[in-house]
Amino acid sequence: MKAVVLEKKGVINIRKVDDPPAPGLGEVRIAPHTVGICGSDLHYYTHGRVGKFVVRKPMILGHEASGTVIDVGPGVKSLKLGDRVAMEPGVPNMNSRAAKLGMYNIDPDVRFFATPPVDGCLCDVINHPAAFTYKLPDSISYGEGALLEPLAVGMWAATKAAIKPGDVAVVVGAGTVGLLTAAAALAGGCSRVIISDISDVKLAIAGTIAGVTPVNIKKEQLLERVEQETDGWGADRVFECSGNPEAYRDILKLGAPGNTTVIVGMPSESVVPLDVVEAQSKETDIKTIFRYANVYQKAIDVVAGGKIDVKPFISKTFSIDQAVEAFDRVAEGRPEDVKIQIRVTQ
Amino acid sequence: MKAVVLEKKGVINIRKVDDPPAPGLGEVRIAPHTVGICGSDLHYYTHGRVGKFVVRKPMILGHEASGTVIDVGPGVKSLKLGDRVAMEPGVPNMNSRAAKLGMYNIDPDVRFFATPPVDGCLCDVINHPAAFTYKLPDSISYGEGALLEPLAVGMWAATKAAIKPGDVAVVVGAGTVGLLTAAAALAGGCSRVIISDISDVKLAIAGTIAGVTPVNIKKEQLLERVEQETDGWGADRVFECSGNPEAYRDILKLGAPGNTTVIVGMPSESVVPLDVVEAQSKETDIKTIFRYANVYQKAIDVVAGGKIDVKPFISKTFSIDQAVEAFDRVAEGRPEDVKIQIRVTQ
Amino acid sequence: MKAVVLEKKGVINIRKVDDPPAPGLGEVRIAPHTVGICGSDLHYYTHGRVGKFVVRKPMILGHEASGTVIDVGPGVKSLKLGDRVAMEPGVPNMNSRAAKLGMYNIDPDVRFFATPPVDGCLCDVINHPAAFTYKLPDSISYGEGALLEPLAVGMWAATKAAIKPGDVAVVVGAGTVGLLTAAAALAGGCSRVIISDISDVKLAIAGTIAGVTPVNIKKEQLLERVEQETDGWGADRVFECSGNPEAYRDILKLGAPGNTTVIVGMPSESVVPLDVVEAQSKETDIKTIFRYANVYQKAIDVVAGGKIDVKPFISKTFSIDQAVEAFDRVAEGRPEDVKIQIRVTQ
Amino acid sequence: MKAVVLEKKGVINIRKVDDPPAPGLGEVRIAPHTVGICGSDLHYYTHGRVGKFVVRKPMILGHEASGTVIDVGPGVKSLKLGDRVAMEPGVPNMNSRAAKLGMYNIDPDVRFFATPPVDGCLCDVINHPAAFTYKLPDSISYGEGALLEPLAVGMWAATKAAIKPGDVAVVVGAGTVGLLTAAAALAGGCSRVIISDISDVKLAIAGTIAGVTPVNIKKEQLLERVEQETDGWGADRVFECSGNPEAYRDILKLGAPGNTTVIVGMPSESVVPLDVVEAQSKETDIKTIFRYANVYQKAIDVVAGGKIDVKPFISKTFSIDQAVEAFDRVAEGRPEDVKIQIRVTQ
Repeated sequence: MKAVVLEKKGVINIRKVDDPPAPGLGEVRIAPHTVGICGSDLHYYTHGRVGKFVVRKPMILGHEASGTVIDVGPGVKSLKLGDRVAMEPGVPNMNSRAAKLGMYNIDPDVRFFATPPVDGCLCDVINHPAAFTYKLPDSISYGEGALLEPLAVGMWAATKAAIKPGDVAVVVGAGTVGLLTAAAALAGGCSRVIISDISDVKLAIAGTIAGVTPVNIKKEQLLERVEQETDGWGADRVFECSGNPEAYRDILKLGAPGNTTVIVGMPSESVVPLDVVEAQSKETDIKTIFRYANVYQKAIDVVAGGKIDVKPFISKTFSIDQAVEAFDRVAEGRPEDVKIQIRVTQ
Repeated sequence: MKAVVLEKKGVINIRKVDDPPAPGLGEVRIAPHTVGICGSDLHYYTHGRVGKFVVRKPMILGHEASGTVIDVGPGVKSLKLGDRVAMEPGVPNMNSRAAKLGMYNIDPDVRFFATPPVDGCLCDVINHPAAFTYKLPDSISYGEGALLEPLAVGMWAATKAAIKPGDVAVVVGAGTVGLLTAAAALAGGCSRVIISDISDVKLAIAGTIAGVTPVNIKKEQLLERVEQETDGWGADRVFECSGNPEAYRDILKLGAPGNTTVIVGMPSESVVPLDVVEAQSKETDIKTIFRYANVYQKAIDVVAGGKIDVKPFISKTFSIDQAVEAFDRVAEGRPEDVKIQIRVTQ
Repeated sequence: MKAVVLEKKGVINIRKVDDPPAPGLGEVRIAPHTVGICGSDLHYYTHGRVGKFVVRKPMILGHEASGTVIDVGPGVKSLKLGDRVAMEPGVPNMNSRAAKLGMYNIDPDVRFFATPPVDGCLCDVINHPAAFTYKLPDSISYGEGALLEPLAVGMWAATKAAIKPGDVAVVVGAGTVGLLTAAAALAGGCSRVIISDISDVKLAIAGTIAGVTPVNIKKEQLLERVEQETDGWGADRVFECSGNPEAYRDILKLGAPGNTTVIVGMPSESVVPLDVVEAQSKETDIKTIFRYANVYQKAIDVVAGGKIDVKPFISKTFSIDQAVEAFDRVAEGRPEDVKIQIRVTQ
Repeated sequence: MKAVVLEKKGVINIRKVDDPPAPGLGEVRIAPHTVGICGSDLHYYTHGRVGKFVVRKPMILGHEASGTVIDVGPGVKSLKLGDRVAMEPGVPNMNSRAAKLGMYNIDPDVRFFATPPVDGCLCDVINHPAAFTYKLPDSISYGEGALLEPLAVGMWAATKAAIKPGDVAVVVGAGTVGLLTAAAALAGGCSRVIISDISDVKLAIAGTIAGVTPVNIKKEQLLERVEQETDGWGADRVFECSGNPEAYRDILKLGAPGNTTVIVGMPSESVVPLDVVEAQSKETDIKTIFRYANVYQKAIDVVAGGKIDVKPFISKTFSIDQAVEAFDRVAEGRPEDVKIQIRVTQ
């Protein structure tokens, strides 16, 4: 089959690789249709590693995917040939202690698409557990289906934030994660989201979501604006989505008494300075998240129900043969690009 | 001043009563503008009592109100003359054990408008604690402001339900409480709400809310429909809003494993039959609510932010001199009536 | 191998049955050492069924068990030959939607020891998933290890109750489940537990647990006593452990404002009358439980750490050849009996 | 009346001051009996300030107190002359937004004993709101009653940690706060507590609490020990009680997947470095606390019920005339001293 293979840092080939074996117990065989490019895909391409995960041998890229069921392994009842699906890219050991507790995403043995040494899904055929494969309703396109993966991050952030109906939120950073977190926070119960960034282009995109107030922190003090918008009370929920260590300096000032601040983005430096005394004065609850668990179906439901429209976030779609071009476009980092996708199926 | 006084069961007079004294410490003086009529107001009129609360002497009716600040007592900083406001009708003893815990709504000593022997606010002037008076933004009309009170019930139901973003909910009963609970559940994070009733008129009104699926249980099995809409999983959140003891027979069947079922409506009989073994098989969490706490500002925020539009629920507005007519209209129980309001200010 | 087989209602034989096959992937082979007799075992013996589960063919009894690992299947790293262990008797489909959410106990497809048509563990050899097999420290005897199963029910009740440190609890019913729930509630954070029953013998046993106040409801009003013990506030946490439908009449009166009432015992009638209006006046949260999840290790820790002493609850131990005698003793229902166990290993 | 007055940094006088006025609405008049010395009292003495709170005029010291009701103001029903009581030292504005939410401890306008410019209670007579005054049972001495205040910090830490029955905890720092947090965590549901410090004397005191494992981090790696004690899983709950910024470097490594880490001690530097990526990998929930709310009665219950014995923590009691000697003793910082108290009443 054809696959988009990261041979080593800086070298991507679209080439033939071996087909996977027949689907095993509980697995379905899927023809990926559309696959989005994530920052981590890019980072493996440009740096050959993400944190402790190092590309030591050729690896198929891609983990944000939708596709079509083309075969069904033994024991699968929930899916059938021809079903349009989205695949949750992390497959845990469901018998691990973390998984038994419902936190399968933090099982240390989870196998995640395109995380060395596990192959991704930018290829013609994959096998995947039916338990982590979700049927798409007709109203959700393959492109939207592939966007469910980054949306799942936002949905999980909104879930862990334990939003109360009507809460006011601040989202720091209007990149892809920030935008989808803002959308999820609104769909998930917030009455308003104030989002900050330094790019007017990004903020303009954010501003198209109903309920979002964009703030360019090059032009305006975020803290002042938040206080003004909340009568001095502060934000009920704060989401750090920039991954910028600088953002941590002030983030705990934005929240109201009893607020929850969720660290969504992984900071580029592991250790960041946090004003613990500021947090204590308001008994801030700082939640940290890692990928997501049990939100794929919910993400489908909010998109199908019309609460979140992800179509405007699909900035451009390339064919699989243009995969290198697609990665190079992501590497450009154009502010107007939210999500670049690759269409695998012709 | 002029007031709408329930003299005794069945007798309402619009007549002069004494003005209240000057506003005390922490109080504001308010000219009520619009007051909605609640089922409890009607019940005092038609039955002279609601449960253990008996009308033993003339009482001013009305507790769903908006108005204008006309004077400010000592110690008040949050409000000023001319502010347009909504009044939270229950005033607790904030030093009670329940209030210290944040559950001021279940302080047994709470004084609630138009609950004997406490007067309501269908009159020209009242004094009210600033801490329970909320400033309305210009975008919310007095009529909408008076609707915040029943909306607060829905908001509290949605808050206590601890909705997770994308949850599917069932609301049993499409009366005023059911409609506002459905709206609050959607604003509060649900992707979809299935609402049931026996009146096509009520269901048609419910159906105008985006995300609501109406089910007439005279024509269709609710349980079957819920299973069909949720792939057999059941509803994540269930709200009983009918107050009909018959509804309790099946309500615990509607929920998914781990669901939360919220008893919003007060059943007309205190003791109802519940299928505890059914609940246990799914570890259902049954939450019960009493009025609301800490949701007025949130209700303002969801209305101001456009997540809930309450205007279509204002069915007709009468002048204060037509108050008896207004109550008689409520007593008719027309299915197309959601909320009847009285305009106090000329 | 030898096994205690319920041939049909009323007929137990100790006889030879086929050995199980070699342990499969992720399984260990265990020689059960001590097995307690549960009310459900007895009920299958005396009635041939429990609810919808009907004994249609011979079934090995027993699900409260400890034993010794005698072989290790492929893929097992957490256990080794000779390990002394306790077995969690319910084995779910870990890929089910409920299990993925951490609620594996309410997976409808769970296979539970001695629940038709699944065999129990009153026999010489069983295979069991390592993920549901827990190593016992030396300080916990086999007899105590077999008691972890009913203790797990109490631990789960205490877990779901979300006890706050220092809470006062009421436990209704001082049978085995009530006693172990009281012990778990105290170990789990309660400062005091008031326990009620009609048997002075049971209450005397309960009274040996530090922190327990026994109340014989034949001699004293439980509600009055609870009010007296809590300065009129009520109990913070209430556990219904009697399974007696009569108990439901008053149970919602016992709790304080904002209390949590946990339905632990399965009532002998599925539908019970509940005073919903009483619950609403205090915003009582009614939680229902089904078996337990993720508490076996915690139960081991509280016993090993000395917070709960289960030794006094082992009333008498029979040999496997006396199994019928053991069941008949349980059938007698002596008030002084808490747990009757069978020692399988000679 | 006689009072212990901090005239300015470094100068304490025991001298006459004016009596307070008659008790106001809802207040009781109390003769303080025993008052403990807190680190903050000492810090005002030695530095003239704690953070933003600066001693600008003479201030009566002391906030950890018990005493006797000697008069009752209007409206007080819960207390009467002669009642032995403990006083919660922070008095909030109960109409503030935070207080209405149940978080009265983080109301910015709270008036707290011996926090400039508010006087403390090391004096003959004070007035205090009955709502923040708690009756002591006969079994609790005045000395123990004065220890309820620091115990309340531990109780609040244990409450916010949302301990599940049987959890294993780590407490970093075996000072007064660490010891009382360890005791509260055990009373509050933990099966075991591992406590770390650099003082063998402190650790020996900690080791007298049943369930506590002391670890001297000068001799042993805390992380290794925690992994060894938890089979590599990590601690379910972690409490930072040292206030040492150095401790933050490793604290997020100690927790298990899904752990809650509570920041109890106020760090000596406001901004500390936290390994957010480590926290994310386990989805650690970092909770911060400020004083306490709604735990005084719970603290009384756990002491009265025998779950916590605070008597061994009362290291020495001085008379009011020896107050300067008492403060100097605290300033010595003897490792064997847990709490130094002053007896006001002769």
